[in-house]
Formats: sequence, structure tokens, C-alpha cells
Amino acid sequence: MSSPAATETLPAATPAAAHIFTTVLSHGPLTRLEVARRAGLSAAAVTKAVRPLIESGYLVEEADTGAGAHTEVRPALGRPATLVRVDGGRALFIGVKLTGDEIIGVLTDLCCRILLARRVPLAGRDPEAVLATAADLVRELLTEADGYGVRVAGLGIAVAGDVDRAEGVVRYSPFLEWRDVPLAGLAAAVTGLPVTVDNDVRALTVAEQWFGAGVGLSDFAVVTVGAGIGCGLVVHGRVVAGAHGVAGEIGHVTVDPNGPPCHCGNRGCVEAIAADAAILARIRETGGTEVAGTAEAVDRARHGDTDAREAYARAGEAIGRGIATVANLLGPARVIISGEGLAAYDLFAEQIREAFTAAAFGSAAQCDVRTRPLPFEEWARGAAATAIQCFITAPN
Amino acid sequence: MSSPAATETLPAATPAAAHIFTTVLSHGPLTRLEVARRAGLSAAAVTKAVRPLIESGYLVEEADTGAGAHTEVRPALGRPATLVRVDGGRALFIGVKLTGDEIIGVLTDLCCRILLARRVPLAGRDPEAVLATAADLVRELLTEADGYGVRVAGLGIAVAGDVDRAEGVVRYSPFLEWRDVPLAGLAAAVTGLPVTVDNDVRALTVAEQWFGAGVGLSDFAVVTVGAGIGCGLVVHGRVVAGAHGVAGEIGHVTVDPNGPPCHCGNRGCVEAIAADAAILARIRETGGTEVAGTAEAVDRARHGDTDAREAYARAGEAIGRGIATVANLLGPARVIISGEGLAAYDLFAEQIREAFTAAAFGSAAQCDVRTRPLPFEEWARGAAATAIQCFITAPN
Repeated sequence: MSSPAATETLPAATPAAAHIFTTVLSHGPLTRLEVARRAGLSAAAVTKAVRPLIESGYLVEEADTGAGAHTEVRPALGRPATLVRVDGGRALFIGVKLTGDEIIGVLTDLCCRILLARRVPLAGRDPEAVLATAADLVRELLTEADGYGVRVAGLGIAVAGDVDRAEGVVRYSPFLEWRDVPLAGLAAAVTGLPVTVDNDVRALTVAEQWFGAGVGLSDFAVVTVGAGIGCGLVVHGRVVAGAHGVAGEIGHVTVDPNGPPCHCGNRGCVEAIAADAAILARIRETGGTEVAGTAEAVDRARHGDTDAREAYARAGEAIGRGIATVANLLGPARVIISGEGLAAYDLFAEQIREAFTAAAFGSAAQCDVRTRPLPFEEWARGAAATAIQCFITAPN
Repeated sequence: MSSPAATETLPAATPAAAHIFTTVLSHGPLTRLEVARRAGLSAAAVTKAVRPLIESGYLVEEADTGAGAHTEVRPALGRPATLVRVDGGRALFIGVKLTGDEIIGVLTDLCCRILLARRVPLAGRDPEAVLATAADLVRELLTEADGYGVRVAGLGIAVAGDVDRAEGVVRYSPFLEWRDVPLAGLAAAVTGLPVTVDNDVRALTVAEQWFGAGVGLSDFAVVTVGAGIGCGLVVHGRVVAGAHGVAGEIGHVTVDPNGPPCHCGNRGCVEAIAADAAILARIRETGGTEVAGTAEAVDRARHGDTDAREAYARAGEAIGRGIATVANLLGPARVIISGEGLAAYDLFAEQIREAFTAAAFGSAAQCDVRTRPLPFEEWARGAAATAIQCFITAPN
């Protein structure tokens, strides 16, 4: 996180207050008692922290109509309990995902609900060209935001590759061919917004942790399949970033040392077998026929083409082994499979499951492996989630 | 941790006080200023927490003679600064490691320094027989402890396999062929001591984190080589236990799907190639000759036997790939290789290094991979470290 802009953050004076706000954000609406229980704090601490957040409009109170998700603690008969929830409309955020071909942008509220989504093609990949296109997109979204009469409080940018979030620098982006681009500072200068830059899979993992299938779990993994095979890890309640910036490289778990060459220099990595391009290459190789793209490959496989079916089956087996490796090393409670590649999930779901079960060690097989469809704007929503995270937890 | 015995713990009234004590234990002697800086707390908080710990004799003050390890903050000229350190002799602990053949026990001080070490062979592997032998060993160490005139404040027991530390239950121990043995409760009943039971590699990892090569690192791994291939992981400053009890199973990372069968049911796991028995099997298979044990295999390899050398080289490559997988997924700052297998390190060090470097992705290769010799009593010391950890952090 880095920004020359005047940053406004939440009136949460302490880490405990930020924790309370996050608890309401992820689990609300909740009674104060439920907030205290879930946050592991005293009722007095919750009351103290909640007051300024209500006064500033970030939290609102409402009567418990019995329709909420807070089923664990029922109010006693008589006077209905008061629930606390986040007013999502109190602040807006912009999330931007950069790919090698296009930029996807979303405007979200404080609860990370998407209000608008836009995608624009990239004219060039050098930082100046990308930044100019991104700035135009952000300005467009800022104009739209004016219609809501609410301030945009932060911009999150997600990029595949080696990203140093603390410094706001893209160390290496293979798709954009960038090295050491100080993106947070550059974007803050042109947009005037506080900017958070993070790796795209880690950003998606933050969105799952705070607003998705990871809510309430201290240990889980997100595995994305598609153009690349990525992985975001949450251990002890925090996203793993790696001491040297690399973490979650499930794509480079070796499945077969004699397998196809990988761009990393090794052979038989999960990515060299299960990424979209690897599946196409396999179909061309075994079938001796051309295949234009992923849509055609999926279509052929669904119509019974043996080579296409085998390529997807092999991909599924590689992904299942990669997931088992994560489970054997970290023992996550859940693995969430997502990504554009899920569109072909029917072609390799069974192989993922079988390979995972065979390679999971002992009780690691109890890990809850599930899928979650990922609309194209979800990557940008992940970027917005990192901006919301910074807005809440940044030092005041 | 579980115990019917009357437990005495440190007079550390708050988590902050326990954190301060641990900081002095791992890094001391330190000035109060250094304690505050390292613990991330105010000087006032340190002063408040330190007072009862000094009064009860767990911490002592001494004049800074300039001979300590605290080199970062030098006292100003004039009056010498006062240093705070743990009085190791204020409490004693017993650590016990159970193997399939013998029990190793140590008596340590509060700084986890070994005062005495004992090993006794096991007569049988059923829980009653093992418990009886362990109880005799503990009683012997308690008698020896009387000579120090200091109370033994806790007993740690370490066992290979699936151990539920929170419940004090050995879920599954392959070497002892145990399932669901409530070891902490049984051992507490016969010894009268507070008992902590943990997986042996995780216990060793605690010892490295608090007293060894992991001091000051929030993310590191311990990899043990020998009869099995184990791994303890510290992520975000805490040992990873896994949501379902399994974590750190580097031994079951697949190196070669067509490799030798593994006891886990798969093929080509690190353990199926690099564990002691796997190395012997490989020498027998390629050489067509008998080999009595690890000592003979090492001897043959050191004298140039091609089959023995190849088997060790293959083991080194498997271990290096396993370590690279850990580095690619978690990005630890350091990997500490230890275990009895290190006695043959000259036979596979180069292959570990080469395979790690080849398979590490990008900056994950910057991970500091180092070795640390492991005397036989070190496993028992790990068990003592878990007892010290419980003594410090248990609720008062």
C-alpha cells in the first residue's frame, strides 16, 4: 500500500476496533453479543468500538426481524434484539485487474458488492500505456460513482506475477513483461486515490476470506485454473505472501519429472499439464490435428473426441495432485477451486477428485474440496477487496 | 495439553506478559528497551510485565558488561544499562521422545538446556508397557532433579505420527502401532506432572523456533531426514498443525509417479526414495547384493560403491525437490535440514542443493537452506520445549 493522496480510513482507532468492524462486515448483521463472541472480545469492548462507527455511519443498527443469517444466538422472548450491520453504501471502492490483453474494472460498495463492471482492451503493454488506459477506466468509474453521491475511498489493482504489496511494486509480471514497476505510486499520482497493489490470486483470496467461501475459516486455499494455475493460501487467518514474495505456486508442483517442459525450466509441472495452453498442446500432439482455442477443445471433448477428453483428464489428475500436495503440507479446512477453467469443469472434475483422494495423506483427505464459479469481473472484485482491507486496517 | 495434576505456570497474567517473557527467553539478555522494541510493545508495558517476573525469580537483572549478544542497541556512555535475562535454573522440565524401539529422556532447565539425557530400550509397544517404561524413566529424572533443589514444572512427550496436542491424544503412531491413545491424561496420572503431547517433528520445530535456528523468523521450515522424512512449518509465527491434524507431510510429496511404492499407497513419494529403508532397498535392487543397514550403506558409498552412491544421490534429489515444493508454496525465509540422516549428508548435500535450485520458482530460490546436526537427545529436547511453551502460555 502506498499513496501520496490524502487517505481517509475508517474511524477505527485500534486493531480491536478494526477486527470488530471486519467481523460485522463478514458475518453481519449480528447482535452485539454475537460480535463479541465471534471476535473473542468483551461486550464492553464491542460497545466502545461500535459507537464511533455508528456515529460516522459505517455501522447501522436495525431491529432483529428474525430474517437474518445470525441463527446461532436467538433473542430471548420479549423485546427484539438490535442487530448491527455495515452500511455498504457508506463508501465506494474501485477494483482493477490487469491482464496482458485487457483491463477489467469494477465499482463496489463497502461490502464488496459490484455496482458496475467495465472491460477495456489494452493498446500496449508498457507501463505508460497500461497506466493511461487504467486511468481512463478509473475516471469513468469515478464519474459513475458521482451518481451515488458517495466518495470513492480506495483503488485496488491486481496483477498476475510477483507483486510486493507492502512496497506497491510489481516485481515481475510475465503477461505484461514488467519488472520493478512502482505501480501503486504511479496510479495514486494519476488518480488521486489511495492505491493497493497485490498479486491477483492473493487478491481473490482476500475476497473469499472476507466475503466468500473462506469466511470464518482460519486455514483454507483458493486454487485458480485457466490460463495459469494459481493458488492463494490463508494460514492462521492471514494470506501467505512468502518471505521473498513467492508463495502459493501450486502451478510449479511437479507431477511428472518426465512430463512436458514448463516455462519455469522444469518438466511436468501442474501448469505444464493443466493450463489452457498445455491442454491445447496435448490435443495437437496426440491427435496430430490443429485446435484453434479452448472453446473448440471443450466442444470437441464434450462431443466425445478421445484426444481432447484425454487431455482434460490428464489436466484434472495434475490439478488433483497439486491440491493434495497443498493439503498434505498445510492441512487446510477447505480448498476452493475457481477460475475461468471451471467452464470445462465437467471434463475433469472426476479426475481432480480421484487424484486428490489417492494422493491425500491420512486425514488430509477430509479437506473440503469445492468449486466456485468465477465471473470475469470477480478478479477485479478481488482487487476492490484489497482496497477495502487497507481502508479498514490502515493506521489512522 | 491435559493434566489432572495441580499445574503451576508462570506469573504472566496476560498474553503480552507471556510474549515479553518469550522474547527475553529467545533473545536475552536484553535491555528493557530492546525487549520493548522486539516485542512491539511500549516500555511501560514491559516494565509492568517484568516486575512480577523478577519478584518471582523467573527473570533476573544484571549489569551490562558488553559481553552479551544484544549488539543492536549499545548503552550510552556513563552508567551501564541493566540487562534482563531468564534464570534458566528457576524451573526444570522433562522431555521424552518415544520411538518404536526405545525411549529417550532429557532433563532441561527453563532455557531448554539439557542437564541430563537417558535412553532405555522398549520391552513392548502396547501403551501400558510403553507408559510403564516411560514412567520409570521420568521417575529417574525426577530423582536426579531433586539434586538441583528445583521443581520440575512440566513433562513433554513427542511421538511420530498423527498427534492431537490440544486433546493430548496420539491419534495414530505408525512405529508404535497405536490408535487414539489418550497419552497426556495417562502420563499425567502416573507422573503427577502437567503433560504436553505433540508430534515429534512439530516439537522439534518449537525448539528451533524458541531456542534454535528459527529464532526471530516468522516463516521457516524444519525438514528431518532419516528413518522417515518429516517437516515442521512455522507460518506467521506459529507452528502449522492442519485443520484435520495432518500438516508438513513433505515425505508424501510425489517426486516420480512411476517411482517405488510408498507405504501410503502411492508411488515415488519423497519418503519412498529418501528414507533410510528406501535407500537400502535401492542398493539391494540395483546392486543385487545384500546390505545390512544404514551404517554399511554409508560406508560403501564413501568407499566409492556406485550403487550406494547412486541411491544416496537419488535420495538427495528427492529431498531437494520436496524442499522446493515447500518453498514454492510457502516462501519460508529459511529451511533447516536436520535428523539422523544428516550423518550421511556428504553423500547427498550436492544433490539436495541442485534439485532445490532447479525446482525453486523465481525468488523462492533465495530461501536460506541450511543444515543443523541433530544429536539423538535433541528429539527429547523438542518435547521439553513444548512443555516450556505450555508452562509460559497456559492460562493462569
